[in-house]
Amino acid sequence: MISPRQDPSPEDGARQEKVPQAGSLAAAPFPRSRKVYVTGSRDDLRVPFREIALDGTRSPVTGNERPNPPVYVYDTSGPYTDPDARLDVRRGLASLRGRWIEERGDTEELSGSSSRFARSREADEALDALRFTRTRRPRRALPGGNVTQMHYARAGIVTPEMEFVAIRENIKRQQAREYLAQHPGEAFGATIPDEVTPEFVRDEIARGRAIIPANVNHPESEPMIIGRGFLVKINANIGNSAVASTIEEEVKKLVDSIRWGADTAMDLSTGANIHETREWVLRNSPVPIGTVPIYQALEKVDGKAEDLTWEVFRDTLIEQAEQGVDYFTIHAGVLLRYVPLTARRLTGIVSRGGAIMAKWCLAHHEESFLYTHFEDICEIMKAYDVAFSLGDGLRPGCIADANDEAQFGELETLGELTKIAWKHDVQVMIEGPGHVPMQLIRENMTKQLEVCGEAPFYTLGPLTTDVAPGYDHITSAIGAAMIGWYGTAMLCYVTPKEHLGLPNADDVRRGVVTYKIAAHAADLAKGHPGAQAWDNALSKARFEFRWEDQFNLALDPPLAREFHDETLPAEGAKVAHFCSMCGPHFCSMKITQDVRDYAAAQGIVSEEEALQAGMEEMSEEFKKRGGEIYHAEEEIADAKA
Amino acid sequence: MISPRQDPSPEDGARQEKVPQAGSLAAAPFPRSRKVYVTGSRDDLRVPFREIALDGTRSPVTGNERPNPPVYVYDTSGPYTDPDARLDVRRGLASLRGRWIEERGDTEELSGSSSRFARSREADEALDALRFTRTRRPRRALPGGNVTQMHYARAGIVTPEMEFVAIRENIKRQQAREYLAQHPGEAFGATIPDEVTPEFVRDEIARGRAIIPANVNHPESEPMIIGRGFLVKINANIGNSAVASTIEEEVKKLVDSIRWGADTAMDLSTGANIHETREWVLRNSPVPIGTVPIYQALEKVDGKAEDLTWEVFRDTLIEQAEQGVDYFTIHAGVLLRYVPLTARRLTGIVSRGGAIMAKWCLAHHEESFLYTHFEDICEIMKAYDVAFSLGDGLRPGCIADANDEAQFGELETLGELTKIAWKHDVQVMIEGPGHVPMQLIRENMTKQLEVCGEAPFYTLGPLTTDVAPGYDHITSAIGAAMIGWYGTAMLCYVTPKEHLGLPNADDVRRGVVTYKIAAHAADLAKGHPGAQAWDNALSKARFEFRWEDQFNLALDPPLAREFHDETLPAEGAKVAHFCSMCGPHFCSMKITQDVRDYAAAQGIVSEEEALQAGMEEMSEEFKKRGGEIYHAEEEIADAKA
Repeated sequence: MISPRQDPSPEDGARQEKVPQAGSLAAAPFPRSRKVYVTGSRDDLRVPFREIALDGTRSPVTGNERPNPPVYVYDTSGPYTDPDARLDVRRGLASLRGRWIEERGDTEELSGSSSRFARSREADEALDALRFTRTRRPRRALPGGNVTQMHYARAGIVTPEMEFVAIRENIKRQQAREYLAQHPGEAFGATIPDEVTPEFVRDEIARGRAIIPANVNHPESEPMIIGRGFLVKINANIGNSAVASTIEEEVKKLVDSIRWGADTAMDLSTGANIHETREWVLRNSPVPIGTVPIYQALEKVDGKAEDLTWEVFRDTLIEQAEQGVDYFTIHAGVLLRYVPLTARRLTGIVSRGGAIMAKWCLAHHEESFLYTHFEDICEIMKAYDVAFSLGDGLRPGCIADANDEAQFGELETLGELTKIAWKHDVQVMIEGPGHVPMQLIRENMTKQLEVCGEAPFYTLGPLTTDVAPGYDHITSAIGAAMIGWYGTAMLCYVTPKEHLGLPNADDVRRGVVTYKIAAHAADLAKGHPGAQAWDNALSKARFEFRWEDQFNLALDPPLAREFHDETLPAEGAKVAHFCSMCGPHFCSMKITQDVRDYAAAQGIVSEEEALQAGMEEMSEEFKKRGGEIYHAEEEIADAKA
Repeated sequence: MISPRQDPSPEDGARQEKVPQAGSLAAAPFPRSRKVYVTGSRDDLRVPFREIALDGTRSPVTGNERPNPPVYVYDTSGPYTDPDARLDVRRGLASLRGRWIEERGDTEELSGSSSRFARSREADEALDALRFTRTRRPRRALPGGNVTQMHYARAGIVTPEMEFVAIRENIKRQQAREYLAQHPGEAFGATIPDEVTPEFVRDEIARGRAIIPANVNHPESEPMIIGRGFLVKINANIGNSAVASTIEEEVKKLVDSIRWGADTAMDLSTGANIHETREWVLRNSPVPIGTVPIYQALEKVDGKAEDLTWEVFRDTLIEQAEQGVDYFTIHAGVLLRYVPLTARRLTGIVSRGGAIMAKWCLAHHEESFLYTHFEDICEIMKAYDVAFSLGDGLRPGCIADANDEAQFGELETLGELTKIAWKHDVQVMIEGPGHVPMQLIRENMTKQLEVCGEAPFYTLGPLTTDVAPGYDHITSAIGAAMIGWYGTAMLCYVTPKEHLGLPNADDVRRGVVTYKIAAHAADLAKGHPGAQAWDNALSKARFEFRWEDQFNLALDPPLAREFHDETLPAEGAKVAHFCSMCGPHFCSMKITQDVRDYAAAQGIVSEEEALQAGMEEMSEEFKKRGGEIYHAEEEIADAKA
């Protein structure tokens, strides 16, 4: 039996609740970074990048300084790092995709929410104080219509969303391509195109190998793509629980997580004011938002899993779809026959959604309404373009339970459901484990591709050992990097608080940066042409003792600076040709320069060769290829003008 | 040209120097952990383990509590966690191996150091204040003798050191073996024995596939083994630089690093009072100590690489060997012909030792004295049993330089040198990179095994991306876990301060714990029978909401507790069946218990089956096999009595 509710009631929650204050989310770019936009085929298609300006390289021989071109990186942070953006958390973000959606002419604005629950919350004056300020009218496909990106893709239509992600994914550099010709990545059957075209994007979506989560009710979102032919993405979980956090904190966590690099966020709130929290989050989110609707549905039946019904669940889906949630985790693969397979496990069922559905199945002795009503769910998904994230309710909760019958049985069912969703042109990704030792990770990826028709895989970690609570961002980053390399399209972050408590702002930062590392390491290993250039720029800055550039190119610029300054705080030390690790005397990079001069003087290599290699090669390289930082360089120049 | 010295002179160093104070290193075991010893074939062969006591499991049905047997883990912390040990940092640790060494009758005590430099330091009264208190007489093989563990192994002798490591490596549990039968590890050709016998140890050492670093002048050390048929080990680097740290801090760092799990430590001091610092470190170290002798040799010639001579280097080797250093990093593979290969690299030569030797080679236009005098070095190594750690002076310093001609050229030479060392029965391990993207890691391991005749590999990381300074413990833990799985025997840690500054106590802790994670994840993936049991015990505690046990079984018990207490500090919360992550209402583990009860009630599984699986299975299991926690259980009982 589930214990009686011990958590604060909504009324308690409302009393303690705090909503975000105007001006609380000021725009603050990183040092020497600025937001630039590349304009696509239409004026309102402006793709954001972060431009990182670099210092020049001073030749130790001639004393001349040569400029280093700026580095452009993929930017998830939205308008929050654009000083020109007008930000007001109480108004929400501008409607980037609004015109695109309207122009398609296949949706209509409704007079109000189609969800009973949503209407009752909206009618409740007691909630006025914590409600998002601006009201909006939800949008839905015209009767019988289908407004998914997959539907358009299969009809041969390249949407602005597809063009947007093509430009966005296309950061690359000649220099990286040369390196990769010598040391190719290993992409395990994925296609990593040399250039991402809108047509490639369309094709991948049509085949179901990639998705663009883009609910018509979340026009504030900047399109992004999840698929193994593209950059590996990461998700950050936010959301309150019954014992902790406020709306204000959750919106702050969202903005923090995208600042550090989260590509999507899931609002997993299970505490008070779930509906209102979600509205604040969505209206202020430039990244797609996912949820697990069963959590809220369970709240509606006072936590009694066996009291859940299709009607309650359906109303919850519609409520959330009309708010703008971009993907739903649905645990429709938890079948009656799989449940007893978990009873002998070391840690049973650890997915909350999975446990709820297992309980329901056993109580009713029948398959869950998620499974029996799966086509009805598809009808809802396609009316708003909500993507499925088919949940792995039976994922292993510890190393000992990895890759067992229950887990792989459910995966087979997720494969069947994928095919049904695709019949409806509904976008699908598949959730994966969890806790898996290194030698069993590959099998997860191989099986998923095989049984789910190459639908994108979206994994939690996996954690590669259970013995390090407090460090599970690290135990899982090991597995995440590996499975990302093998082909996982999106990695769900794990924070240092996993298994111990709710993450605070610092945990979110560490979790996101750690997962950026895993995703980026996977991109490098796959041979993504855009990934290598960033590493090379930072390594060059390191070798040339351009400390400021080294900080500014880091995934976490303030932390890199702070760590350096702990031992050598003086400003002078940041141009010094040594660091506290070795002192001025022992610096191997300094000695290497001497070796190059020597080699040149001795004629072992030509002076020019040594010079170019050490100091000037890449500047020359960049200069020679000036126009080709990436294919849309001209547009960047335009955008800056 | 190397710049003139800007670092504090030894005199400045002495003024600021601080030596450890009596009583500064008190014994402090982790909560509910205690030191136990297993006695081997002789009374003075007592192998330490950490015993972690656990709470019982209360059945939710009967309310009865069943005990959980304690967990035993490999313990690197030495006497510092034994409240019965008499600790005095000014006297140093007890001589654990002294009698074994004496009994062999193949060494003699010298009247004083054979090193000129050591004698001059000892005669300098100005250094009295910072000198280690107790004087000792160095020991050396009788003329023409060979006192290496490899020499004994090849003569068929099982030394007490070999028996010690056999017992030490032999933690295992029936339950883990059952799991592993279903999900075997993948050991890439290494032999992971079901039971580690002294004879297996002897055989691995005789073949050169494992080493026991055990200088006859470091009798304080507890024997440990490095080889891919054994648990993966980790090394922590300590040591001052010209701009930071004191003797007191370095000894503290050593004791900290072994508390968190470091298996060896390298003293990489390059600042003031290197000789005296090393003496303090060695006399207080229960783990083998490694050094890079060229650092100190360079200090002796005022930092001018080209002024280095065989005579200065030879004297340094003898100085350090007679102090008790257990392994030397020697960059003898940096050959003249490889140096120009680095001139076109993005980051040239980043190994300090490599850069020094490259500079020397170029200045003199001849191969280094490390290479030309390699057999002379072997003669020194075998007179004290110092092991080679053949340095990779040309390792890549960034992703773009990985697996290039220079790196693999040097590796070939290290392979040749290995064979020469083995001719002298001198123990060898091989150092490896560095910075390597995931898809190129495997090639490093394969090549190393092939060209170095399976000598143990000892890698730094490798870092799998360069874009995250401040997080390089994580970028490198990914590579370390993978290469550990592929067969690397020891992983050199990287701290969060890598590339930015000198690590402080907190960085050492994070670096060591992160590397314990990598090593343990590798052990799991290789299918080491001892590794799995620890994960299972923690997972079981987690599932049963035994919070205290979960903390105490963690690699970092205080941090796990601290994180939990941040959101739920009350003592009551530590027995609560929920955590702040999900609140009391949503706990999936709680729901899983309900599912099991249901399943039993419905007859889907028998009640007994559900109960056993959930709560009591393992207790039963342990009880049934009571006597077999590991093969030397009786001795544990003896030791405790």
